[in-house]
Amino acid sequence: MLYGWHPVIEALRNPRRRARRLIATENGARRLREEFGKLPLEPEIVQPRAIDNLLTPDAVHQGLYLVCDPLEGPDLDAVPESAFLVVLDQVTDPHNVGAVVRSCAAFGVDAIITTERHSPVATGVLAKAASGGLEHVPIISVRNLGDALEKLGEQGVLRVGLDSEGVSDLAVVPMRRPFALVLGAEGKGLRQRTRETCDVVARLDMPGAIKSLNVSNAAAISLYLAHGALTRAGG
Amino acid sequence: MLYGWHPVIEALRNPRRRARRLIATENGARRLREEFGKLPLEPEIVQPRAIDNLLTPDAVHQGLYLVCDPLEGPDLDAVPESAFLVVLDQVTDPHNVGAVVRSCAAFGVDAIITTERHSPVATGVLAKAASGGLEHVPIISVRNLGDALEKLGEQGVLRVGLDSEGVSDLAVVPMRRPFALVLGAEGKGLRQRTRETCDVVARLDMPGAIKSLNVSNAAAISLYLAHGALTRAGG
Repeated sequence: MLYGWHPVIEALRNPRRRARRLIATENGARRLREEFGKLPLEPEIVQPRAIDNLLTPDAVHQGLYLVCDPLEGPDLDAVPESAFLVVLDQVTDPHNVGAVVRSCAAFGVDAIITTERHSPVATGVLAKAASGGLEHVPIISVRNLGDALEKLGEQGVLRVGLDSEGVSDLAVVPMRRPFALVLGAEGKGLRQRTRETCDVVARLDMPGAIKSLNVSNAAAISLYLAHGALTRAGG
Repeated sequence: MLYGWHPVIEALRNPRRRARRLIATENGARRLREEFGKLPLEPEIVQPRAIDNLLTPDAVHQGLYLVCDPLEGPDLDAVPESAFLVVLDQVTDPHNVGAVVRSCAAFGVDAIITTERHSPVATGVLAKAASGGLEHVPIISVRNLGDALEKLGEQGVLRVGLDSEGVSDLAVVPMRRPFALVLGAEGKGLRQRTRETCDVVARLDMPGAIKSLNVSNAAAISLYLAHGALTRAGG
């Protein structure tokens, strides 16, 4: 589900997004009609409080709530040869996840894989930070990330984890598709099994006084490097 | 001024930071004494409300408020040959500025230059996002950013601006110290005079559906590229 002006209009505009139910206040529906003319699906008009009750108290829904299917991502049992995937190991802060989603959309990532339990709900904060990216990058939730990484490995996906303790400098790691960049939570890094199921664990070298970056910043640099290396490798 | 547990203890620990007045609640002072043993300066004990009154209602001060001098940065009238500077043109969101400060600390930036008017106050949000970076990177406020950029240029500083409309790909721009990376606000980019006072305006190439990154993410990639290029150029 999505809520708030930008997430809902972006989803309604996206031909890849299948909307199921649109719940709106009278004002929300009127603004949508001004934006779209004819709406792609008929809103159920409710009082603002009815939407309040679907959400946490701090959620800014602007009178719009959309129930929709997740974007269709690649089948993890049959990963395409050309896949460029990102795996998030317990990254949960919605500002950070949103910025990662946006960077994934900018660097042409095919899907983000995360665990069901720590899967970020597409809240207003996340959607705002993603700046439209949620409509371009499917988020695939799996029960067990270690199992999913093993399954990817069996299909020849090169799994490169990012960790401050990594043995290789990410800038010189050979890369090729199908490819998965594995990112851990700030402070905690990759969990042990996640690290063990990576083919390479790499670090970003930083010369300054502070040796770690915000997770979305580390993700952006890594995606930039991975995209460049994958392109040079011929894809 | 700084407030809150982490910003205040990091500042008190920093030999480069000159503290002027420490204002604390009884609890705040007790926790500080547990952390430090003898405190570097004697706290003035006040009621929590006295600190509330110094701040905006949403500020989480944890009973600690520190008045201190800004970190000493390079003299902009006599920039060292080795300088690596970052210039922020109206970037104000404290989450973003904090993350940029942290990345600057990670990549060995000597100082951040910004305008007085849009200078971010080192609030709790900014300090938390900077994750200690505020104690390593001086923030220099100037009255007029265009004038400051001209003065830098007269001293031979290579000024490279980042803008989605940039003519060159940042990855191939020749760089050397003294160097300044100039970053604009998200959406707005660089103001016209800022752009005109840059020696090069460069872009980051992104192949995906979304063509812009969060400003701190764009800054992180740019700092990574600049640091690499400056190192290869022999500094």
